[in-house]
Amino acid sequence: MSVIRNIFTSRPEKGGNFFVTVKKIIGFKPINITHYEEAFTHRSMALQDKKGNAFNYERLEFLGDAMLGAVIAAYLFDEVGKGDEGYLTKMRSKVVSREHLNELGRDLGLLGLVKSAIPKENFGANIHGNLFEALVGAIYQDRGYRYARKFINKRVIDPYVDIEKLEGRVISYKSLLIEWCQKEKRLFDFDTYEDSGQDVVRHFSVRLSIDGKQVAKARATSKKKAEEKAAKRAYYVFQNKIDVHRFN
Amino acid sequence: MSVIRNIFTSRPEKGGNFFVTVKKIIGFKPINITHYEEAFTHRSMALQDKKGNAFNYERLEFLGDAMLGAVIAAYLFDEVGKGDEGYLTKMRSKVVSREHLNELGRDLGLLGLVKSAIPKENFGANIHGNLFEALVGAIYQDRGYRYARKFINKRVIDPYVDIEKLEGRVISYKSLLIEWCQKEKRLFDFDTYEDSGQDVVRHFSVRLSIDGKQVAKARATSKKKAEEKAAKRAYYVFQNKIDVHRFN
Repeated sequence: MSVIRNIFTSRPEKGGNFFVTVKKIIGFKPINITHYEEAFTHRSMALQDKKGNAFNYERLEFLGDAMLGAVIAAYLFDEVGKGDEGYLTKMRSKVVSREHLNELGRDLGLLGLVKSAIPKENFGANIHGNLFEALVGAIYQDRGYRYARKFINKRVIDPYVDIEKLEGRVISYKSLLIEWCQKEKRLFDFDTYEDSGQDVVRHFSVRLSIDGKQVAKARATSKKKAEEKAAKRAYYVFQNKIDVHRFN
Repeated sequence: MSVIRNIFTSRPEKGGNFFVTVKKIIGFKPINITHYEEAFTHRSMALQDKKGNAFNYERLEFLGDAMLGAVIAAYLFDEVGKGDEGYLTKMRSKVVSREHLNELGRDLGLLGLVKSAIPKENFGANIHGNLFEALVGAIYQDRGYRYARKFINKRVIDPYVDIEKLEGRVISYKSLLIEWCQKEKRLFDFDTYEDSGQDVVRHFSVRLSIDGKQVAKARATSKKKAEEKAAKRAYYVFQNKIDVHRFN
């Protein structure tokens, strides 16, 4: 295994070594870094572990997919009281859609960590989501279900999962808020700027003011997401005054 | 919720009340019995919880299915070193097949615990598996992932999951052993008898002797399963002498 270790630690990523980068991405300390090395090894490296089994991210994808399914199911079970089995299944498939997982993996810059013997341009479009799943699998192997859930909460549920939106009751909080401001003749201002700080991922912050008074702040991995988040917070401030459009 | 509680505790099942029966089935103490009541309530009872949400096993099925998927995935990931993602997926679908889940639910006698306003004969063929999934969901809600895994290990993996068989390398340990005995001119005897003990489920025990000497004992929920288990144990005793037939 020392060969694998060396491949990883000898290539510093974004100003730190592999361990430090993984720690930043997952938000806690890896215990056995080998699991993460497996999650970022492409099959083209043709590596094997000591038992002679293939050492690459493909099997961890299977595990991570299952853990994502379980954690999201438990979350939806608690949060969506009204839905039956079929409805919950449909909501989960929106959360863990290929498109969404690709976005998550891309935002975290997971591709930059991959060791591959073939050019990364040759990977398919789903590489980002596959790596994201593999990372979840690695966390489960390393630290168990509780930490896998912690990571999924931090990187999937908290920033992206919005029951109102999943249920189609709200399409965009930003447009909801703008419409309301126009109707009420109020002035709104989204003051958006790059604010990556110490984060491994590029981030943006927004200060949202209405009639010159700051009502919400938010930070996310794109301008659009940060503005949406701030608008959502403002929506909750003005909740009694804004009507939720029901589209379904 | 007290209405629901009363429905359950007032109908003793198999010599104990609902709580005692559930405890026997799951192998540890329920903390909040309401989750198990939900797992054994049919929609025809038209019950609601205090939030006005439907109170029946259907949503718990969704949760249990996800937890089963995760626990079996983690088990196979560790045990089947050689398989790739597709292979692991195929093996998991054998373990959690509808047929297998129905068998598990039937063996545990889960149908006997159900409260329903319609005759149980009207339930479809998959009721047993659905109840089994709902029970797993209830355990997760009540005691978390660790206990759900513990239950799945005890009731699914330990008694039924056999990597050699799943991989198609061994179809039946009993026939393997019998063939070997015939070839080697040895006398074998499966001494099988009912042995339910304190268990909620009917059980059988087997003493397997070869040339008059007891070589293995086993206990399971059917004669066939108990004999297969004993034969498997004997197989491991004689491992160096018996050739595994490779069917794939």
